[in-house]
Amino acid sequence: MAIITLTTDFGRRDHYVGVMKGVIRKFNPAAQIVDLTHEVPPQGVTQAAFVLYSTFRYFQEGTVHLAVVDPGVGSSREILVVRAHRQFFIGPDNGLFSYILDEADSFEARYVKNKGLFLPAISSTFQGRDIMAPAAARLSLGFKFKKIGPLAEKIVRLTPIAPVIEDDSIRGRVIYVDYFGNLITNIPSLALTGFQTTVIAGPLTIAGLSSSYNAVEPGNYLAIAGSSGFMEIARSMGRAESPPDLGLNTEIIIKKSKYHERKLKAN
Amino acid sequence: MAIITLTTDFGRRDHYVGVMKGVIRKFNPAAQIVDLTHEVPPQGVTQAAFVLYSTFRYFQEGTVHLAVVDPGVGSSREILVVRAHRQFFIGPDNGLFSYILDEADSFEARYVKNKGLFLPAISSTFQGRDIMAPAAARLSLGFKFKKIGPLAEKIVRLTPIAPVIEDDSIRGRVIYVDYFGNLITNIPSLALTGFQTTVIAGPLTIAGLSSSYNAVEPGNYLAIAGSSGFMEIARSMGRAESPPDLGLNTEIIIKKSKYHERKLKAN
Amino acid sequence: MAIITLTTDFGRRDHYVGVMKGVIRKFNPAAQIVDLTHEVPPQGVTQAAFVLYSTFRYFQEGTVHLAVVDPGVGSSREILVVRAHRQFFIGPDNGLFSYILDEADSFEARYVKNKGLFLPAISSTFQGRDIMAPAAARLSLGFKFKKIGPLAEKIVRLTPIAPVIEDDSIRGRVIYVDYFGNLITNIPSLALTGFQTTVIAGPLTIAGLSSSYNAVEPGNYLAIAGSSGFMEIARSMGRAESPPDLGLNTEIIIKKSKYHERKLKAN
Repeated sequence: MAIITLTTDFGRRDHYVGVMKGVIRKFNPAAQIVDLTHEVPPQGVTQAAFVLYSTFRYFQEGTVHLAVVDPGVGSSREILVVRAHRQFFIGPDNGLFSYILDEADSFEARYVKNKGLFLPAISSTFQGRDIMAPAAARLSLGFKFKKIGPLAEKIVRLTPIAPVIEDDSIRGRVIYVDYFGNLITNIPSLALTGFQTTVIAGPLTIAGLSSSYNAVEPGNYLAIAGSSGFMEIARSMGRAESPPDLGLNTEIIIKKSKYHERKLKAN
Repeated sequence: MAIITLTTDFGRRDHYVGVMKGVIRKFNPAAQIVDLTHEVPPQGVTQAAFVLYSTFRYFQEGTVHLAVVDPGVGSSREILVVRAHRQFFIGPDNGLFSYILDEADSFEARYVKNKGLFLPAISSTFQGRDIMAPAAARLSLGFKFKKIGPLAEKIVRLTPIAPVIEDDSIRGRVIYVDYFGNLITNIPSLALTGFQTTVIAGPLTIAGLSSSYNAVEPGNYLAIAGSSGFMEIARSMGRAESPPDLGLNTEIIIKKSKYHERKLKAN
Repeated sequence: MAIITLTTDFGRRDHYVGVMKGVIRKFNPAAQIVDLTHEVPPQGVTQAAFVLYSTFRYFQEGTVHLAVVDPGVGSSREILVVRAHRQFFIGPDNGLFSYILDEADSFEARYVKNKGLFLPAISSTFQGRDIMAPAAARLSLGFKFKKIGPLAEKIVRLTPIAPVIEDDSIRGRVIYVDYFGNLITNIPSLALTGFQTTVIAGPLTIAGLSSSYNAVEPGNYLAIAGSSGFMEIARSMGRAESPPDLGLNTEIIIKKSKYHERKLKAN
């Protein structure tokens, strides 16, 4: 049972997503199509990259992830298919799969060049429908990876997510703001295990990590190990986001001291 | 062919819903997943309870309804699975299934405690993904209900929907405002059959029930037997909602006289 | 594998779409349901007609398209099923399928009158759930078209999309504004092949067609052959829509000269 996921910045008002689903089902009527999101901010490549990175590991082997966030449509950028983590990723070569590849032991990337996979008429403005959807459908049916096109020699990569880790501090930033206004940072929660932390986020100073979103008084801010593996800044019963002080790219500084280790030794 | 419905307050911008679908399909690739809504107002337990109540009766036997509207995530509230109306309902124990249970002749409620159903790593902030989604998928595959966990002794229940019915009047309230701005009340349309009614809704007085949303002049208000079984206040070619006078929880008073009965006798 | 598409103005906040899906799956549990859009502007029949027209050709034979945009619900308008282009279209008789039929060599239209197809209880306000969804599900299962109801004698048709084509100019209008703020006109891109064009759109004068959305400087406007087959007015890195000057129904004038033909002759 093949699964194809969709990630776009198309919104849901128009017929664009539906058209892609029609094309996919024409080639693979039994495909299970899962919408990850169609509300990536217009041309928000890094946000889409984060969505894919946070999601793929919950899907089964063989899943095909189709991502169409494409500031360069109509330019000479290539269309990419990557095999990594025993799944497939297809989309424009603009960095969308960077974070996934940063975590892969190995991967194989090819350009989508086999015209036999395309729709008969190719528009200049909607390659998601004309090239990527039919290619994704064929991949989900077991189409031979090597026949999709030649190996990609050099692919676009975003700056890795990783923060700067120093002896007694970590410097990171907010990489995603979710629907609830939670600020997701690029600091892995695991990096904070066993430390007493002070979190500085814009104008805020927060002592320690909380264990739930409502562990502090309503209206107060907190830091928490979020569900995507990263530390988040949240606000009890409210939205932490508050531009320009607290939002995408806000710098986050963690000061850490090894209280826990000392405590363990004391016991 | 198993059906699993989803009801959340997650919105559709982020990857949270997609991740849950990935988990569900990992365990049951053939499940048909139906989104009821992901736009419940943040932590709107009563609105979600109304959505589930208005919807479940249109689904087939064996359907699994998963609802994640969860102000208490991270606290000690339990996760519940209920078997009622030959369907399954899974979600936090905060009253989400109250209206459905009010209408059930009998039901069985259990806590989701069988750790064999969980994902290997459990976060403190996303039990919808880590516990509820895999449990829902297993239920849809016929997993034995008794093995999910122990009987729930006392579950959280909301105030029943029912209005106050007196001899010549009914006192109710607005329990849901829909996308069109229609005010759905807790007054069953059936309770009005055979009566001449005057409806008082905040500043409005409306005489009688209309048979369609545009039965009165554009801009005028009307009362109508809505599709969910309850009387609604609507506005022809417009939105009836107009806070603070007309919105969620606005009191609704029906004055009724038995004109119909008299008319019947006269014949 | 039967496909049923849905096009409504219901939004996604409420349970209305989910309820229709429950009804469809009750009759055809294996149906693949594709949401085209649920965000048609309230009662936007022409917009929905355009969505269907731009989409149907990407779906396989036998697909059932269910459209519920229904300003006349509760009035005496009929419910229609049309067989055209080897697909089925079901919805209120208010012009929703006009553009599709304008392009059909032949079609057969019937009223949905067979009460055996309806849900047992019919509301006056939600025929999408009570009549259209169960009829669509049956069609997707191969239910005999002739048994749905009598031939429709005269059906509502919108003004055809076609612009006014004169010797050296084309007069059209904006028929759809998409999520990105692109203005889709009723002028087929093919009508412009081989001509040098000047496009006048409200206060704008644009010389020639561009080949991609970012072929001009950020902030500048352009005309382009859009993915639906029509010429669009767009703005590089921005929204072209700017009411009241540039929006739905704005007049579009194309002045064309046969430079291309002359150039070819010169060679």
